[in-house]
Amino acid sequence: MADNKLVREITSMDEDFAKWYTDICIKAELIDYSSVRGCMVIRPYGYAIWELIQKEMDSRFKKTGHQNVYMPMFIPESLLQKEKDHVEGFAPEVAWVTHGGNEKLEERMCVRPTSETLFCEHYKSIIHSYRDLPKLYNQWCSVVRWEKTTRPFLRSREFLWQEGHTIHATAEQAREETLKMLNVYADVLENCLAIPVVKGQKTEKERFAGAEDTYTIEALMHDGKALQSGTSHYFGDGFAKAFEIFYTDKDNRQVNPFQTSWGTTTRLIGAIIMTHGDDNGLVLPPAVAPIQAVVVPIAQHKEGVLDAAHKLAESLEGIRVICDDSEKSPGFKFAEYEMKGVPVRVEIGPKDIEAGQCVIVRRDNREKTVVAIENVKEAVEKALEDVRLALYNRALENRKNRTVDCLTLDDFVNTANSQEGFIRAMWCGDRECEDKLKEVAGVTSRCIPFGEEAIGDTCVCCGKPAKKLVYWGKAY
Amino acid sequence: MADNKLVREITSMDEDFAKWYTDICIKAELIDYSSVRGCMVIRPYGYAIWELIQKEMDSRFKKTGHQNVYMPMFIPESLLQKEKDHVEGFAPEVAWVTHGGNEKLEERMCVRPTSETLFCEHYKSIIHSYRDLPKLYNQWCSVVRWEKTTRPFLRSREFLWQEGHTIHATAEQAREETLKMLNVYADVLENCLAIPVVKGQKTEKERFAGAEDTYTIEALMHDGKALQSGTSHYFGDGFAKAFEIFYTDKDNRQVNPFQTSWGTTTRLIGAIIMTHGDDNGLVLPPAVAPIQAVVVPIAQHKEGVLDAAHKLAESLEGIRVICDDSEKSPGFKFAEYEMKGVPVRVEIGPKDIEAGQCVIVRRDNREKTVVAIENVKEAVEKALEDVRLALYNRALENRKNRTVDCLTLDDFVNTANSQEGFIRAMWCGDRECEDKLKEVAGVTSRCIPFGEEAIGDTCVCCGKPAKKLVYWGKAY
Repeated sequence: MADNKLVREITSMDEDFAKWYTDICIKAELIDYSSVRGCMVIRPYGYAIWELIQKEMDSRFKKTGHQNVYMPMFIPESLLQKEKDHVEGFAPEVAWVTHGGNEKLEERMCVRPTSETLFCEHYKSIIHSYRDLPKLYNQWCSVVRWEKTTRPFLRSREFLWQEGHTIHATAEQAREETLKMLNVYADVLENCLAIPVVKGQKTEKERFAGAEDTYTIEALMHDGKALQSGTSHYFGDGFAKAFEIFYTDKDNRQVNPFQTSWGTTTRLIGAIIMTHGDDNGLVLPPAVAPIQAVVVPIAQHKEGVLDAAHKLAESLEGIRVICDDSEKSPGFKFAEYEMKGVPVRVEIGPKDIEAGQCVIVRRDNREKTVVAIENVKEAVEKALEDVRLALYNRALENRKNRTVDCLTLDDFVNTANSQEGFIRAMWCGDRECEDKLKEVAGVTSRCIPFGEEAIGDTCVCCGKPAKKLVYWGKAY
Repeated sequence: MADNKLVREITSMDEDFAKWYTDICIKAELIDYSSVRGCMVIRPYGYAIWELIQKEMDSRFKKTGHQNVYMPMFIPESLLQKEKDHVEGFAPEVAWVTHGGNEKLEERMCVRPTSETLFCEHYKSIIHSYRDLPKLYNQWCSVVRWEKTTRPFLRSREFLWQEGHTIHATAEQAREETLKMLNVYADVLENCLAIPVVKGQKTEKERFAGAEDTYTIEALMHDGKALQSGTSHYFGDGFAKAFEIFYTDKDNRQVNPFQTSWGTTTRLIGAIIMTHGDDNGLVLPPAVAPIQAVVVPIAQHKEGVLDAAHKLAESLEGIRVICDDSEKSPGFKFAEYEMKGVPVRVEIGPKDIEAGQCVIVRRDNREKTVVAIENVKEAVEKALEDVRLALYNRALENRKNRTVDCLTLDDFVNTANSQEGFIRAMWCGDRECEDKLKEVAGVTSRCIPFGEEAIGDTCVCCGKPAKKLVYWGKAY
């Protein structure tokens, strides 16, 4: 049957999750490969999802007083080297430009892997007085990190992202900004992408190169692996000192300002696929679905059907809707739009028209509702909201089912070996224990969560006193 | 006086146009320089203008059926070399990436100077049947061309742009697309940027590398130099042949499709500056002004003034308005917002409040109108439209005054030496004459205009029969 053809081509999730993932990337027409190894072509459907994510993020950035800017894509080697920890973290994975046209450059430049150094140079040029602070900037661009193993959206040599960069008169203001933007990220993920997240702080080992503190939102994918989905960094005045950025305060003293940066990437598209997708393909949360509803006419050769279908689509104004009047069979269309994750399908055929009704089908659970044609808009709007909530709740349920508290090392190792998911366990704070847990259980610390109570008072690894509750897991 | 301070810092246009231009770029806070030679930092005010240009362009692209995509930023050398003319045109001015991390790449890659080759590779992967055509794509990104001499917005090593790329079943459809998008560009320039353009075709010498035909919109700057402001290329099936792109047509034959590409860049911000700016700074056409109106309270320490000013700003809903209640003097604020090119200023002081009125001042001619407070919204809207029209008409007038018809070579050379502007003259079509006119008069052919009548029948250079009317000029 034509309607099964597309679906048959996807590997099932349980059989091979990684293959299922790349199958969706290709079959839902999100990406294509190219001869540029480790980079991807983002196709119209994938890019439209990104544009919708951008819109949600950007409006929130602007509401919180941020302005967009654009820095050069190159960083001269000497500039990259100004902050010691930063260059150590990034130099091994950058792409180097050595020639312009036929001439060798006097100094090689890397393609930005992140732009802290460029922002610092700019701050130094424009910040003189306390009156010039704060500066709340954001940049939408692509960055390059020379990864060895790559995967569409999750880890590619080039990816699209936004990087916020702010600079403040006081440490307190910078710390407040760091957490404010983490909360903006959590808001977008939970309310727009229907992805529940654990908010928390990274351990020193997992911190961004050059940061004093890194905060993160961690999501759990359908297969039980964690995905770091957004990070926000507090830099203190470390970069300001390295770049000699000063401002004159109200008492006429020359002091260093304090900085933050924060970022999210096209990786979020990967998060959507792996949180909500199923064996029929992609499942999109309505807020970022390029097509929120598709009207499929049934027996469209019969008189009046196409007309009724088009009218139905027109009546859904304000919803991103299409009417597919192509000559493919309804079954083929069903499978196609399921593959593409369209949240709601509306079917209308001769019998429906006679009865003054249509059928609404939800993508997430295939639940069908018959509604009167005059009520279709409210019904589709309700279905969209129901889909969002159901996706969120299903993901939250999955996370709950896959989160285990462990009090002993044996329990920890056994749990890590027997299932994928989060392990909550107490940690003394020593890097040695963190390394050992990775060695014996294959997990990394995901974060020290906000607002969760301790589940014991000794380190799961060494047994010494411990005050920190940590989420551990295997991560993408 | 404080209100003259900012203005004094700008070189006057007549004294040194180039210096005046860069002064505005810096003082209106559009850009900053950085240690990355030939690249620029686009600051919030400059980037906000670009976002508004993007919005105007992007909505028109989507209305005409185009979809946004994203291709890798790198092009392997072997891919760039597939189309002979194309590589010859671009290879001398690309930046080469030779190392990833610490390893030398097996094949070096350039940072995209333009993405035809990447799109071709992708087309080859996704186009199989006539049912797959057309594909109407656009990409927003940055590109790199290793220029020797650079200037903010006009010519920089990295710049932001959009590049449209489309592929069609027939030559006719591709040709139609090429002109359709040229008209979209002309629409944005004339109606949003208030910049009149000459639409036409490039000569063979001035064609894009690899194109069969290149069309252009040419604008005349305040100083009489031409600025190529957008181009649209018809490729025929040349790229398709070079990249072996075929599709199966309705008769089951394997045939090559036909392609186009078209682009506009952040150079348009330079066009705005040089078309509308004056000795007080930037003058922005309202459609792309980040701030369309600024309310400046007069004697704001007096009771009720700040309140009235804020209420005035609130009543201007739908207009991009700010109320500047900072402690700077009104004169300083006037100069500052004139520098920033804000199209309309609204002043309100104690006497105005008493009389129930406010004062509207246009940026372009400083014309003042007193209006009743209750009519301020209509009055500001009218003023914005008046500014747009006046800017357009002033620019058109400048172009008319600076466009001269020449029938003889002597006249041509004298005109070119005595004034900057367009010269309209007949041309036989020979490259030799085109080269000679550059040599003796320092001008290049800007375009063969659409819909303008011949002004003679012999070539202005060689005297042989000529059917082509050409616009000539010195260009940025």
